[in-house]
Amino acid sequence: MDPRVREHAEIIADHSTGIEAGENVVIAMPREAEDLAVALHEIVGDRGANPVYLNNSERASRAFLRARAAEDEDDEAGAGEFETPDHQLALYEESDVVVVARGGANVSEQSDVAPGTTAAYRRAMQPVLKERLSKRWCLTQYPTSGHAQLAGMSTEAYENFVWDAVGLDWDAQREHQAEMVEILDGADEVRIRSGDGTDVTMSIAGNTTLNDYGEKNLPGGEVFTAPVKDSVEGEVHFDMPLYRQGREIEGVRVRFAEGRVESYSAERNEEVLDGVFDTDEGARHLGELGIGMNRDIDQFTYNMLFDEKMGDTVHMAVGSAYEECVGDENEQNESAEHVDMIVDMSEDSIIEVDGEVVQRDGTFVFEEEFE
Amino acid sequence: MDPRVREHAEIIADHSTGIEAGENVVIAMPREAEDLAVALHEIVGDRGANPVYLNNSERASRAFLRARAAEDEDDEAGAGEFETPDHQLALYEESDVVVVARGGANVSEQSDVAPGTTAAYRRAMQPVLKERLSKRWCLTQYPTSGHAQLAGMSTEAYENFVWDAVGLDWDAQREHQAEMVEILDGADEVRIRSGDGTDVTMSIAGNTTLNDYGEKNLPGGEVFTAPVKDSVEGEVHFDMPLYRQGREIEGVRVRFAEGRVESYSAERNEEVLDGVFDTDEGARHLGELGIGMNRDIDQFTYNMLFDEKMGDTVHMAVGSAYEECVGDENEQNESAEHVDMIVDMSEDSIIEVDGEVVQRDGTFVFEEEFE
Repeated sequence: MDPRVREHAEIIADHSTGIEAGENVVIAMPREAEDLAVALHEIVGDRGANPVYLNNSERASRAFLRARAAEDEDDEAGAGEFETPDHQLALYEESDVVVVARGGANVSEQSDVAPGTTAAYRRAMQPVLKERLSKRWCLTQYPTSGHAQLAGMSTEAYENFVWDAVGLDWDAQREHQAEMVEILDGADEVRIRSGDGTDVTMSIAGNTTLNDYGEKNLPGGEVFTAPVKDSVEGEVHFDMPLYRQGREIEGVRVRFAEGRVESYSAERNEEVLDGVFDTDEGARHLGELGIGMNRDIDQFTYNMLFDEKMGDTVHMAVGSAYEECVGDENEQNESAEHVDMIVDMSEDSIIEVDGEVVQRDGTFVFEEEFE
Repeated sequence: MDPRVREHAEIIADHSTGIEAGENVVIAMPREAEDLAVALHEIVGDRGANPVYLNNSERASRAFLRARAAEDEDDEAGAGEFETPDHQLALYEESDVVVVARGGANVSEQSDVAPGTTAAYRRAMQPVLKERLSKRWCLTQYPTSGHAQLAGMSTEAYENFVWDAVGLDWDAQREHQAEMVEILDGADEVRIRSGDGTDVTMSIAGNTTLNDYGEKNLPGGEVFTAPVKDSVEGEVHFDMPLYRQGREIEGVRVRFAEGRVESYSAERNEEVLDGVFDTDEGARHLGELGIGMNRDIDQFTYNMLFDEKMGDTVHMAVGSAYEECVGDENEQNESAEHVDMIVDMSEDSIIEVDGEVVQRDGTFVFEEEFE
């Protein structure tokens, strides 16, 4: 086993989730990530905790989703109808820690599942997701050839990329990001402008900005908060592509009015967005505003876990807001979806907070290169 | 995917477990069996049931068990101490059907886990096992190169062997076996003699004999019951080897008095038996008497799921008795163990029921070749 796999597992167990004796741990990852699962089982045994090991197989879930959709002839949309799986819910209810790794063999495995089917399934799974997110959890990446190919990298170069990113000095990263948290915490209005396509304004008054330094996401490297639900106004051109259900979605443009998605378009695979926005009403509202601050992630790999952390980017997610970000006075946006999309801020771009420029062309006001 | 994998999945879903709409299904198998898991997910989706997919990884559980044992320095036996995993228990409590397939890459994967550790873990897992056995369940085999190697067969020949056995005409097999069920149901004393080493007598009065035709075990092909707990007297030479925790145990001899294991020995790997018999008091009593009746399984493959079903054999299991076999008047033997061991009955062997010979040298009284 590559020694970096054991280091990866230790960072998950110590830094990200803090697994302790007697705790119930769910380890959910595809078969390709078995080395990481083995290393985690070793640590779980060492700590005196108890593991359950789920196989997150995209092949299996594709087979399930397609069969369900095909069977449901009564369903007009042909999407299939799904039940919340009580046994899976019960598993998470009794758990303390959940570790999920991505890393299937083929990132296009679900490309022939209808977007409406995925949306219907997500709705049924929402109580399970909510339960999972109420635990100490970590989402990470195992470097497989499929994800290397998606990034246009050799497998070895991609392994180096992933394990370098995972093994960052998270204390230093936390301190760097704390400066941006300070700016946003207690602020009211955020305005983001980039090129011709993006000029959006939102309130974050009363909400909390969190510092992500490799806990719930590994790698981490962003600060994020929730917009006040009805405050988002303007338009955004998400000029970085995203992968969703095995399909690349490019050139997404969204117009918000009173916080709601008023119209949208995409240059490629727009029908996947239809599935997202039709999932539920919450999917038509922004749940997150995030600012990428990890300059060690220096290339785009078509993987949101990494891409959204890159320096010189901001991202916004339609769908569910994180509970910890939403102040008592504000409404938490709820949805079965949480879809991040990215704006490149490296050129012709500005972030303003309460009328003051805090980032210009990717450089923060607290960095030496500013102005 | 080999079309026989889909047929295998259909037999599991239809014949063995009868999966229906709205049911919660657990699919537990190693990564090597992913094709079978995918085929099952397709059927589960088709039926409108809900899957959870566990990765039964021997590598992961080895890592967990060894780390736990190493950590427990206070534990005099050095076996490690284990807790019942509540989250796994909760999963099974909310399930209707459990499908387990064996088929790891390396059958010796747990050969360096101390038998005492495995025994301690089984004790902690007993409530989970009991819950699982209270559901509709099926244990089956996926043909992997590791199990082919154990059987001394090429992978392709082993695939043919497994899928031929799984695809038997189960209705015909049930009818054939019903003749032996009729003999045992309502009988009192069973005596089994074979060669110089085996002469054992037990009562089955009040207990029920079940006909196994590919439901809980796939392949099936035996009739089985539970001995009255304190009735077993005599000695047994289990002259067929068994594999346990990645080790081959050969030439097991056991002496019973008043139903309890009075003494035992093995020609090879006796220490694995120590771990079994020291698990709990129930492991020192017989939980099952089974008679192999599947003449289509025509070779020994060091795999109990198949070997115990062979014609010309009987098997006895130390440890837990199946609840369905035990009459209201009798005590059900409880244990965290259930270890089957086989006696070759093809030569110099007799089964007597209430003083009448019902099988001689493997041939049953209701078969033409008898006498």
